[in-house]
Amino acid sequence: MEDKGISQAVIARLPRYYRYLGELSDEGVERISSGELSDLMHVTASQIRQDFNHFGGFGQQGYGYNVAYLYQQIGTILGMDQTHKLVIVGAGNLGCALAKYGNFERRGFLIEGLFDRDEKLIGKKVRGIEIRPMEQLESFVKDHKIDIGVLTIPKTEAVAVSKRLVAGGVRGIWNFAHVDLDLPKDVKVENVHLSDSLMRLAYAMQ
Amino acid sequence: MEDKGISQAVIARLPRYYRYLGELSDEGVERISSGELSDLMHVTASQIRQDFNHFGGFGQQGYGYNVAYLYQQIGTILGMDQTHKLVIVGAGNLGCALAKYGNFERRGFLIEGLFDRDEKLIGKKVRGIEIRPMEQLESFVKDHKIDIGVLTIPKTEAVAVSKRLVAGGVRGIWNFAHVDLDLPKDVKVENVHLSDSLMRLAYAMQ
Repeated sequence: MEDKGISQAVIARLPRYYRYLGELSDEGVERISSGELSDLMHVTASQIRQDFNHFGGFGQQGYGYNVAYLYQQIGTILGMDQTHKLVIVGAGNLGCALAKYGNFERRGFLIEGLFDRDEKLIGKKVRGIEIRPMEQLESFVKDHKIDIGVLTIPKTEAVAVSKRLVAGGVRGIWNFAHVDLDLPKDVKVENVHLSDSLMRLAYAMQ
Repeated sequence: MEDKGISQAVIARLPRYYRYLGELSDEGVERISSGELSDLMHVTASQIRQDFNHFGGFGQQGYGYNVAYLYQQIGTILGMDQTHKLVIVGAGNLGCALAKYGNFERRGFLIEGLFDRDEKLIGKKVRGIEIRPMEQLESFVKDHKIDIGVLTIPKTEAVAVSKRLVAGGVRGIWNFAHVDLDLPKDVKVENVHLSDSLMRLAYAMQ
């Protein structure tokens, strides 16, 4: 999809719309007005209309939005009609927690492999996914056409491992390591820095 | 601290400055110019100067910033000179992963209790922290002056549990449940919606 110059702020809001519309659809709701969606999501109705206008509107004046259609369209924009193949590097507590979380698969994110440098973990399985040695990382990523690497390892190793993932053909990194990665521009990085998040909460509470 | 009208965008950047300055300080670096910090952090020097000006600058013209002083000042702004007491509700994979992560304590976030509704888990310990039954939640929060509740439970339970935490006196919720909470304005909520984050990555990769 070509870049339509949609702001990061709008894009950041799409997954939340997608979640609410999916829940409405599950509840059998067929149509919803921007006003009703506004009440539900605590976002102004004008914000909703503006956001949806970026993608062609999806609405008919006076009739509200068709929930199933809007859900499907936003899903397509978010790439939910595609599947992604993931490996998780770091089979510690957080890595295993992510591997065990089945909901990612429902959204097309398939966890194909787990990697760890701890020899005692090699060969064990987490929700059926085998833990493999780090030596196999590049070849596995290449052979299985993995497109997303998840980093749940200490920050001291994350930079080097991210480069190995990219060498294997990965185009996206979901980075839980507390370090900023420096990768080619065509590789996308989404950081989840939990300590930063907790500090923001503490700041807001002051 | 009174609200100085600092934008959310600036506040969101502070933990990252804090992290880099902490690392520089650990490495024995005493002074750094906005240009050097810019190269390191991939943020423009003018952005750095603007951000720091919100808090009184911290710099002397031509001499660069005093790393230790800046680290300490940003730490104070972020409330790092205070300690917070946390409970984690939901001793599943993610809850236990957070409980085992020792780095939060170094930053003054003390995990005092873990709660779960699964009777088989009650009394077990994670890194020395006992798992307690849900019935004790409000009284524990009140007696131990807990100020932050961490939600690592399914979204179907999160809304009700968040209200119980607030009734016990919690002023901040770190919410990993995939649902938006609706709480009084003086209670701060920081959401970590992992599925949304993964979808943003997939969108960026298109």
